[in-house]
Amino acid sequence: MKPVTLKQIAETLGLSVATVSKALRNYPDVSEKNKKLVNDLAKSLNYVPNPSAVNLRTQKSKTIGVIIPATVHHFFSNVINGILEVAEKEGYLVILMQSNENYELEKRHVDLLINKNVDGILMSLSNKTNNFSHIKKILDFGIPLTLFDKISKSVNCSKVIIDDKTAAYNAVTYLIKKGHKKIAHFRGDLIPQNSIDRFLGYKQALIDNNIPYDASLVFMCNNNNDFKDGYNAAKILHKNFGDSVDAIFCITDVVATGALKYFRDNSIKVPEDIALFGFSDWFMSSVITPTLSTVHQPGFEMGKESAKILLDEINNKYKGKTVSYKTVVLDTKLVIRESC
Amino acid sequence: MKPVTLKQIAETLGLSVATVSKALRNYPDVSEKNKKLVNDLAKSLNYVPNPSAVNLRTQKSKTIGVIIPATVHHFFSNVINGILEVAEKEGYLVILMQSNENYELEKRHVDLLINKNVDGILMSLSNKTNNFSHIKKILDFGIPLTLFDKISKSVNCSKVIIDDKTAAYNAVTYLIKKGHKKIAHFRGDLIPQNSIDRFLGYKQALIDNNIPYDASLVFMCNNNNDFKDGYNAAKILHKNFGDSVDAIFCITDVVATGALKYFRDNSIKVPEDIALFGFSDWFMSSVITPTLSTVHQPGFEMGKESAKILLDEINNKYKGKTVSYKTVVLDTKLVIRESC
Repeated sequence: MKPVTLKQIAETLGLSVATVSKALRNYPDVSEKNKKLVNDLAKSLNYVPNPSAVNLRTQKSKTIGVIIPATVHHFFSNVINGILEVAEKEGYLVILMQSNENYELEKRHVDLLINKNVDGILMSLSNKTNNFSHIKKILDFGIPLTLFDKISKSVNCSKVIIDDKTAAYNAVTYLIKKGHKKIAHFRGDLIPQNSIDRFLGYKQALIDNNIPYDASLVFMCNNNNDFKDGYNAAKILHKNFGDSVDAIFCITDVVATGALKYFRDNSIKVPEDIALFGFSDWFMSSVITPTLSTVHQPGFEMGKESAKILLDEINNKYKGKTVSYKTVVLDTKLVIRESC
Repeated sequence: MKPVTLKQIAETLGLSVATVSKALRNYPDVSEKNKKLVNDLAKSLNYVPNPSAVNLRTQKSKTIGVIIPATVHHFFSNVINGILEVAEKEGYLVILMQSNENYELEKRHVDLLINKNVDGILMSLSNKTNNFSHIKKILDFGIPLTLFDKISKSVNCSKVIIDDKTAAYNAVTYLIKKGHKKIAHFRGDLIPQNSIDRFLGYKQALIDNNIPYDASLVFMCNNNNDFKDGYNAAKILHKNFGDSVDAIFCITDVVATGALKYFRDNSIKVPEDIALFGFSDWFMSSVITPTLSTVHQPGFEMGKESAKILLDEINNKYKGKTVSYKTVVLDTKLVIRESC
């Protein structure tokens, strides 16, 4: 006996194949009545889902979904603008979801985007995401996915990143070459790969220059690397070490700006008393006094590149071509200004 | 003879009522084949759409759509965070769309959100939106809508705004009381209501203080009130007027920051040579040197209030209660810092 198909269930009940498929997957836009009908019949016919049938659509929706952790960072605004530029040219609409660095919300966003039939998903993971079953679900549904900036090495898909470790290594090496010996690090959360890599780059630069690594000089930013994080870390650093620390390498420009504000409020001179180095090259970094040295992170290009890879993958999928995953590493550069 | 209903068409063709309704409205997620079937039958049966049948859903999707002009302004990030706080508490997911100040894109976003069955829409209009048929379409579909910040007075729906004219009037009056007599204005685009109102407040403050209004002192920011706009306007102002202008009232803090950068680059001292006043109270305004005087615009509260009004309207609609529109005007205040 041949296995029962979705189509047969659909025809028996007078429903569309899509409705039957969604009913079996408990989608919210199918009525409870239809869910019951479908599930009862599927059970009585011993229906076994066919994994290759999960993607039932043959028509593109011409929309892509983007999940980002926050819009408050200028970096992500740049990424969004890069994505929009490419998507618009190709006639795609972009649905944005902001996870607010919340893993549970990120999971719900993934479900919503799958449910809304987007053709592909671009995603930068929240700082709290340490389980990737929701990401794997996207791939199980056959939906093209490209991760950017905050990625996980354990997910097998296309990625657009920078080399955070090397960039951080270069920044800290620059500080050491300028004569700084006691260099603190205001680091990001423990989970995100870019936060880990920037920390590792910091540590490696110290070791390679014969400066002993001192864990007490590393401060965690717990409020998603924002202005207050930098302000508070500078306060604790100053309380614990007085003026003995001569430079700080910060996880982001916003954190560095918070530190700068603390030093300003307490008449500690930057760069004379303490040097500061940021990361991201936010446009404000060239405006504040002193202007901030930083790692230029190409947000706009990252958005464009991610969108291009995703749209290629979508096109290949619809043409029935084999999809291969790429990892693109974009160049960064040090931008030296007045703060060090 | 009774008029033909959607339901009859649906039953005749073995399609769902939703599919028939969407086919008649030319929705992209209905196949061309079904569109032709439905439209041919509707034509042959002389089907006349019933306006009260446009909203066919009886179940909430528990998602709301938000269309904003840009994420690059910290103000909109704050609004989004306010919206997310309220939406999350009530179990709603938020779909964001960024129009990039593009009217055509804004129209497509409206269509997409209607098509994706959101329960309600929150919207801040693009600088280029001067036709409101897409907004009226939302209301015609019976979808609750709340406009915030950049609204149109000609659309009849709930609104959350600030009193831009009074806020601008107070800022410019403050500059006049401090002894400034030749005050320039870096204004926004001609279309948005908040740009018009801030300009009118500026003008009225001059008139009420017996300072003649001089149109040559008003500079248009054409690049969506960004940093470069402020920089370029300051450059032209300086070229045209040398050091005879003693203060500038800017449409946004970002524009003021751009102007500040120009003056810094050209050794013109703020506030000694020229005073600056911004609008929005971006968090960076308290960090730059000199710190910037501004109008505090309550973005987070605006997001919360808009979301609350929208969710109330959605709930009332589903309970069959009469919906009444509200306009909420949130308080602003002057924040005086070093720049004036």
